Amino acid sequence: MKNKNYYAILMAGGVGSRFWPVSTEAFPKQFHDMLGTGDTLIQKTFKRLAKLIPQENIFILTNARYNNLVLEQLPQVTQRQVVLEPAMRNTAPCILYASLKIQKENPNAVMIVAPSDHWIEDEVIFSNNVQQAFDFCIKNDALMTLGIQPTFPNTGFGYIEFDKSSKEDIKNVKQFREKPDYETAKSFIKQGNFLWNAGIFMWTAKSVIKSFQMNQPALFSLFEKGVNAYNTAKEDDFIQDNYGKAENISVDYAIMEKSKNVYVLAAEFDWNDLGTWGSLYDKLDKDESRNALVNARVLAEDASGNLIRTKIDKIVVVDGLQDYIIVDKDDVLLIFPKSKEQDIKKVLHKVKGKFGEQYG
Amino acid sequence: MKNKNYYAILMAGGVGSRFWPVSTEAFPKQFHDMLGTGDTLIQKTFKRLAKLIPQENIFILTNARYNNLVLEQLPQVTQRQVVLEPAMRNTAPCILYASLKIQKENPNAVMIVAPSDHWIEDEVIFSNNVQQAFDFCIKNDALMTLGIQPTFPNTGFGYIEFDKSSKEDIKNVKQFREKPDYETAKSFIKQGNFLWNAGIFMWTAKSVIKSFQMNQPALFSLFEKGVNAYNTAKEDDFIQDNYGKAENISVDYAIMEKSKNVYVLAAEFDWNDLGTWGSLYDKLDKDESRNALVNARVLAEDASGNLIRTKIDKIVVVDGLQDYIIVDKDDVLLIFPKSKEQDIKKVLHKVKGKFGEQYG
Repeated sequence: MKNKNYYAILMAGGVGSRFWPVSTEAFPKQFHDMLGTGDTLIQKTFKRLAKLIPQENIFILTNARYNNLVLEQLPQVTQRQVVLEPAMRNTAPCILYASLKIQKENPNAVMIVAPSDHWIEDEVIFSNNVQQAFDFCIKNDALMTLGIQPTFPNTGFGYIEFDKSSKEDIKNVKQFREKPDYETAKSFIKQGNFLWNAGIFMWTAKSVIKSFQMNQPALFSLFEKGVNAYNTAKEDDFIQDNYGKAENISVDYAIMEKSKNVYVLAAEFDWNDLGTWGSLYDKLDKDESRNALVNARVLAEDASGNLIRTKIDKIVVVDGLQDYIIVDKDDVLLIFPKSKEQDIKKVLHKVKGKFGEQYG
Repeated sequence: MKNKNYYAILMAGGVGSRFWPVSTEAFPKQFHDMLGTGDTLIQKTFKRLAKLIPQENIFILTNARYNNLVLEQLPQVTQRQVVLEPAMRNTAPCILYASLKIQKENPNAVMIVAPSDHWIEDEVIFSNNVQQAFDFCIKNDALMTLGIQPTFPNTGFGYIEFDKSSKEDIKNVKQFREKPDYETAKSFIKQGNFLWNAGIFMWTAKSVIKSFQMNQPALFSLFEKGVNAYNTAKEDDFIQDNYGKAENISVDYAIMEKSKNVYVLAAEFDWNDLGTWGSLYDKLDKDESRNALVNARVLAEDASGNLIRTKIDKIVVVDGLQDYIIVDKDDVLLIFPKSKEQDIKKVLHKVKGKFGEQYG
C-alpha cells in the first residue's frame, strides 16, 4: 500500500530547444521517446514516481498548450492532476501554487518536485533515496534536494556545496552555486563537497509554504488569496486573473538559496539530464562503430560516433561522417557536428528567421 | 506542319541505379524530375522531340512494368506508342522490333532513337542537328549517330572515331571504341577525331532493317516472322511467344560496329548523360556556397559543393560537409561523398542484402 500522504509535482513546461528539430515549442522533448525505449520521457518519469507515490497524487505542472499532450500520454491522469500555468513565470510561482492546492487537499502531504525529462537508471535506488528524504522531511522542517555526484567538471550545471564535517547521509547545504567556469568547476570537484543540482526537491507542503511565506511574502500573499478557490470551480477564474501578476523567479532563487533549513542527500542512482544531443548520445546503446541509432536502420561506412535518429525503420546510408548528430523529421533534416551541440539554439533561431516560426 | 514521315523511338527501359535512392527498379530515373524543373526526364525528352516529330510518331520502348508510368507522365501518348519488352534483351532486339512496326505503318519512315534520360540544353540546335541528319538519311542509305564533342578524357563513355580527312559536317565513322582507360582517353582527345557516343541514332526504317538483315540474320528472321501480326490484335501473342528467344545484344554491337555505312554528325548542343549524381550536380544551379538544391530549403554552415535533394520544401540544416550527396526520401536517407559516386551501385547492393530487395 502506497502512503496516501506522498505527492509529486512533475515539471513539464519546458521546451528543450537544444533538442531541435525533435523538440519544438509545439511538441517539446519531454513528450518524445528520446531514448527509443517505447516510452516518452514524461511517461518514464511518471512510472518511476508511481512506484512510491499513489498515481492520483502525481501532479503535472505544465503550460496550457501541453494539456492535451499530457492527458494523451498519461491516460491514468485526470484533469485534476494537470496544473496549467497561464503564463511563463519560471518555477517558483507554479510550485507555490501547486503546493497550496496539495496542502488544501491533504495538510499532511510530503512531496517531491522533479523534472519530467531526466534519465535515471535504477528505479529501486531512486525510490529508496526519495523514501529516505521523505522520512527526514516528515520528522524535520526541511527543504531537501537530491544532489548528483559529479563525474567531471561540467560547466552546464549548478552545484550544491554541503557541510564537509557532517557524517550523516543527509547533510546541511552551505550554499548553491550557479553554473561555474571550468576552473571553478575543477576546484569544486577537487574539494569533494560539491554535488550537481538536478532540480529535484522534497519537502512537506507545510515546510515549503512556510518558506515562501518567510522569503517571498508578496508571492505568497498573491497565491494565498486563492486558497478558498483552489480545487473548486472558482479556481480557473482566480488563476487567470492573478497568475500573470506573479514575479518571474526560480524556486532555487526564491527559497532554496535563502533558507537555512536546506539539506542534501547524495543520490546513489545514475543520472543524466538529457540536456543536449551529446548527453543523449552518452546514454544510448551504440553499435560496433559507436553509432547510436534511434529508430533508424543504418549502413555506415567509415562513419562512427554518430547519433542517428529517424522515423521508425528509415534506412540511412552514411559514409565518412564522424561524431555527427543526424536527425531526420518529416519536414526537417539536421546534419550537425556533435561538438557544436550548444549552437543548436542559434541554428533554431536562424531557421525560424529564414523559414518561419512554425519550424521551432 | 511536321513531317509525317518523321518518327522517334525513346529508350526508357533502364533503371539508373547510380541514382539510388531516387532511382529504383520500381521508379527509375527517367520518370523523376531530376533537375527540379517541373518535368521528369522523359517528359523533357518527349517535348524536345515533339518540336520536330509529330507526337503520334514518338514511340516509347520500355519494360512492361513501366507501362503505367509512361501513360501517366505522357498523357498525349496512346498505348499504340508504348512498345513493351516482355524480357530484358538489351537494345538491339527492341529497336529491330519497333523499327519493323514503324516500317509497316509507314514504309517511308525516318527515325531517331534516343535515350529518355539525357540532358540537352538547346532544343533549337538539337532540332537542327536532327533535321540535318534526317535529310542525309533520306538521301543516303546511312546509319547515323550524333557524337558529342569531348570536354575531358572521360573513361565512362564509349568513343566514336571519325575520318579525319573529311571536310563535311557528316563524316564517315572509322570505328567505335568501348570505354577506354584514362591514358587512351587522353590520346583520343589529343588526336581530335573522337567524339563521345551518346547513344543517339538516326536512320530510315529501311536502312536499319536492311542492316539487321545483313549483320544479324537470326535476330532479323525471328522478328521478321511477326510482321503480319504487328500493329494488329495478334501482336501481343507473337511477342510473348518470341521475344524471349532474342539474343541479348546491344544495337552498337549488333549493327553499328559491323556496318560500313555509318556516319557521325558532331552535335552542337550542350549535352550531359546525367549518369551519376556528380554529372547531375554539374548541371544544377548552385547557390553562393556551390550547393545545388533540388526541392530542399537549406541552412548551410561551412558546407559547400553539396547536392541536396529532398521532398518539396523540406528544411535541411547542414554543417561542416563538403562535396556530399545528400538525398532524402520518405524511407531512405543517403549521406555520401560525391567522390565515391561510382560506389552507389555497391551500396545499393548492400542495402538490398541487409534490408530487403524492396529498397532498390
